Amino acid sequence: MKIALAQINPTVGDIDGNADTIMLRVREAAEAGANVVLLPELAVTGYPPKDLLLKKSFVSANLTAVDRIASDTGDIVAVVGYAARTGSGAGKGLLNAAAVCTGGRVVATHAKVLLPTYDVFDELRYFDASPEVGVSTLNIGGRPVTIGFTICEDLWSDDEYFARRLYERDPVADLRAAGAELIVNIGASPFSVGKPARRNRLFGEEARQAGVPVVSVNQVGGNDDLVFDGTSAAFDASGTLVARARQFAEDLLIVDLDAGGNRVEPVLDDIASVHDALVLGTRDYVVKCGFDGVVVGVSGGIDSAVTAAIAVEAIGKERVHLVAMPSRYSSEHSLTDARALADALGVAMRTISIEDMHAAAERTLQPHFSHRAPDITEENLQARARGAILMALSNKFGWLLLTTGNKSEMAVGYCTLYGDMCGGLAVLSDVPKTVVYRVAEHINKRVDGEIVPEGTLTKPPSAELREDQTDQDSLPPYDVLDDILERYVEREQSVAEIVSAGWDERTVRDVVRKVDGNEYKRKQAPIGLKVTSRAFGSGRRMPIAARYPS
Amino acid sequence: MKIALAQINPTVGDIDGNADTIMLRVREAAEAGANVVLLPELAVTGYPPKDLLLKKSFVSANLTAVDRIASDTGDIVAVVGYAARTGSGAGKGLLNAAAVCTGGRVVATHAKVLLPTYDVFDELRYFDASPEVGVSTLNIGGRPVTIGFTICEDLWSDDEYFARRLYERDPVADLRAAGAELIVNIGASPFSVGKPARRNRLFGEEARQAGVPVVSVNQVGGNDDLVFDGTSAAFDASGTLVARARQFAEDLLIVDLDAGGNRVEPVLDDIASVHDALVLGTRDYVVKCGFDGVVVGVSGGIDSAVTAAIAVEAIGKERVHLVAMPSRYSSEHSLTDARALADALGVAMRTISIEDMHAAAERTLQPHFSHRAPDITEENLQARARGAILMALSNKFGWLLLTTGNKSEMAVGYCTLYGDMCGGLAVLSDVPKTVVYRVAEHINKRVDGEIVPEGTLTKPPSAELREDQTDQDSLPPYDVLDDILERYVEREQSVAEIVSAGWDERTVRDVVRKVDGNEYKRKQAPIGLKVTSRAFGSGRRMPIAARYPS
Repeated sequence: MKIALAQINPTVGDIDGNADTIMLRVREAAEAGANVVLLPELAVTGYPPKDLLLKKSFVSANLTAVDRIASDTGDIVAVVGYAARTGSGAGKGLLNAAAVCTGGRVVATHAKVLLPTYDVFDELRYFDASPEVGVSTLNIGGRPVTIGFTICEDLWSDDEYFARRLYERDPVADLRAAGAELIVNIGASPFSVGKPARRNRLFGEEARQAGVPVVSVNQVGGNDDLVFDGTSAAFDASGTLVARARQFAEDLLIVDLDAGGNRVEPVLDDIASVHDALVLGTRDYVVKCGFDGVVVGVSGGIDSAVTAAIAVEAIGKERVHLVAMPSRYSSEHSLTDARALADALGVAMRTISIEDMHAAAERTLQPHFSHRAPDITEENLQARARGAILMALSNKFGWLLLTTGNKSEMAVGYCTLYGDMCGGLAVLSDVPKTVVYRVAEHINKRVDGEIVPEGTLTKPPSAELREDQTDQDSLPPYDVLDDILERYVEREQSVAEIVSAGWDERTVRDVVRKVDGNEYKRKQAPIGLKVTSRAFGSGRRMPIAARYPS
Repeated sequence: MKIALAQINPTVGDIDGNADTIMLRVREAAEAGANVVLLPELAVTGYPPKDLLLKKSFVSANLTAVDRIASDTGDIVAVVGYAARTGSGAGKGLLNAAAVCTGGRVVATHAKVLLPTYDVFDELRYFDASPEVGVSTLNIGGRPVTIGFTICEDLWSDDEYFARRLYERDPVADLRAAGAELIVNIGASPFSVGKPARRNRLFGEEARQAGVPVVSVNQVGGNDDLVFDGTSAAFDASGTLVARARQFAEDLLIVDLDAGGNRVEPVLDDIASVHDALVLGTRDYVVKCGFDGVVVGVSGGIDSAVTAAIAVEAIGKERVHLVAMPSRYSSEHSLTDARALADALGVAMRTISIEDMHAAAERTLQPHFSHRAPDITEENLQARARGAILMALSNKFGWLLLTTGNKSEMAVGYCTLYGDMCGGLAVLSDVPKTVVYRVAEHINKRVDGEIVPEGTLTKPPSAELREDQTDQDSLPPYDVLDDILERYVEREQSVAEIVSAGWDERTVRDVVRKVDGNEYKRKQAPIGLKVTSRAFGSGRRMPIAARYPS
């Protein structure tokens, strides 16, 4: 039996466009001799469709598209993710479903049992859980085969990542009991560091336990904050990986379950996968929003250098516009490093001094400052002048402004709201500062040269908003900070737990206080590309007018 | 039997402070002769605690607080909302629970069956559903009484608002079957227009159907975007309302279920309730965040006038700071109207011209605009200069900047990101423009005079960002716009449905296109106070890099 994994990149809400892509892939799979072709979870709507699912007209359009897709199938069996109506007068009235299409019609529908409602997932907001997993016995290449259908989370009930079983149900055990000879999984499982390998490991283990092959397809592409890595894969009945599709790219992988000899693409290491996720997430945000180009403010520092380099890889140097905005506090090497970056990327850089706007803001405001000493206010004026310049270029030329701040800064609020936080997409806002450096080294290694300048990599990080400022005037060293942040934000450790890991209590309390006290800034932050297990944004929902436990 | 409804205003996360308040109210209720005292849902943590519930240390602190509260009870039965651990190794491991405390200890725990996961509610993200509603037979005034315990949504299974039954289960029927002689409900039900009356109606109907009294307590106060109206109430076995607590204020209402003659506070009309919700929401955001004062940019227009008036009612005129920021396009009457408002409120107003900053921005940017014609870019420069001025005052003096934009503007993107959208709390961002006018009239009527100046009420609305501009250059009349928006945003109607209601198709398509195209702005908007059935913000989760159905 040959199964095609159609690892497509749908656009959320673009039902007609997604259906066209699906029909194209189904035809290609049939031409390649596949008996079955798998499309991702909610392939018709794109994942996650969010509150579009609350629009009756949207759900109706998605049902019409499924009929159109089914009508175009011949002998091949196409398994397509869509939103099905329950027909019940109670509950949410929708199912996260797989349509089994063959011979011109939908011959069966199976729906998701385990609906993830944690982190970035809100599936119980939209869907009723199916009471049972489904099997269908289909004529495959002349013989009846009983296939068990699972949708994404249905295969994750044994996930090692959580300290507890999230679900009482184990759909795989049910499928085994129902006589499944093969388990398919259609998914939309977003990337975070280490997750592709973990997903492969878990699915292999499910195949081994069930004693039948598991064949899975995953969505690929960026949709707002989420980047889907693809990495669709097949496992034999012993749990051994026998085929794997590309990462961070569309693919149509034909898996021969009998003959073997299938294509097995490699899994990238952590830093390479972060890099590729950022490039894909940036490209898809730009393309799916319909922007012609992007603009990046470059300071000579590491964050803007990496953001600019990723933008060039994502959409090409012709569509990337760099702006240096020196002030009276900018050092000579900042402009030199920014220029070296632009030259290495082959992108023209314009230089716009903020001095005139900065001085005007000081003249306007100082009479109203009641002779108070200079403080963060004066620093923010500079960041906001830069924000206004970049937004004016964005408005005038229709370029998307990319925000350059990293996760460490966002965590402790070392950034200016309406200043350097301006922009439509924050490329690095889930990348800790220490990882930004490693991504920069990876970027240079890829070209076996210097895109991110040596000076940028080696000088002490500074916001340059006053004389001789460095980040470490206000923050612990980044390796310390990032470890504390990883424990506090990603692992939800308490102060006591972090201190017992060996960090100084005063430092820990100071970092935690800064994280808690900056929810208001992050509430208004641009969308950021999620690459860790817990990003700020839709997967971390914190109150603002609140007290936090110590 | 006497039941006390302790309608408290907890702060989210302030477990010790909330526990102190709860213990105080329990003592007051006992002193007033109550047999039972009801505290709201999750009273110990404040509602909604959001992802604080994912912190083990937070849940532990909440359990410790419940023990402390219970240890202080004497004969009185205190019913207290908190987060309970299930003790199971599967699922979320938490219950949204009521502790029944008496005689110094917790004698029973009952948990919520129906967990709302729609609009602003995410309860299935945190909690496991209790498999059954609970009854306890308690010694009340010398005789055993079987009480049925429900938590908020458990009484909402018959809500008329949704077109379908949201739940298969009907906890009230189960309680009746279990022999409940009285049903209590502890809730945290946020305000929207018409909801207090609907809640009273629904609970009365539940009492009538069950044939037993229903006694309910609701949280009061603002927590970020949500304002809880209180309106706690009791109903006899025929469904008749016999007692009602205050709206938008703390209260301790003692209900005598036998003797009657209880206090019944009135329910405010729609506009008065919106006004009071905005005042309470603003006050609590300022107080719970710990700000000394607020700053408001006043333009002479209706939105900033109403925002300023609400701020003064919320926290007193001494703590409200008004700033007029005229430009070359400001009309004479704008400054006159702004000054009249400040005088009527008794607040000093400072005037800061944006001309110097505006001119500097033009000088800086025009060489980079490639001789393109003036467009929205030049208008945004002015809004962003004002935003920078207000934020500088906020930074320098620690004042919260209140954002003044209304829901109609936010819907169609008639506002500048990082300009007039700057601020920590958007007081009116869920109030349609037509309702803003009615709230203004209400404000004037309350003082039987003129706080919002006549000129502000009667002149055509204008952003004054170019010569002779009015809002209706770009938008349909506000009564038309607001009806279309209500259908599209609150009721999820399609273009076809809105057109069939009598509106011009081109107008409808233009409005819908603007709503869909401005998700990116709203993603970065400040928190706004929810007063309609569907606010932008946590209750409306839309994709950005997406296509929308037409």
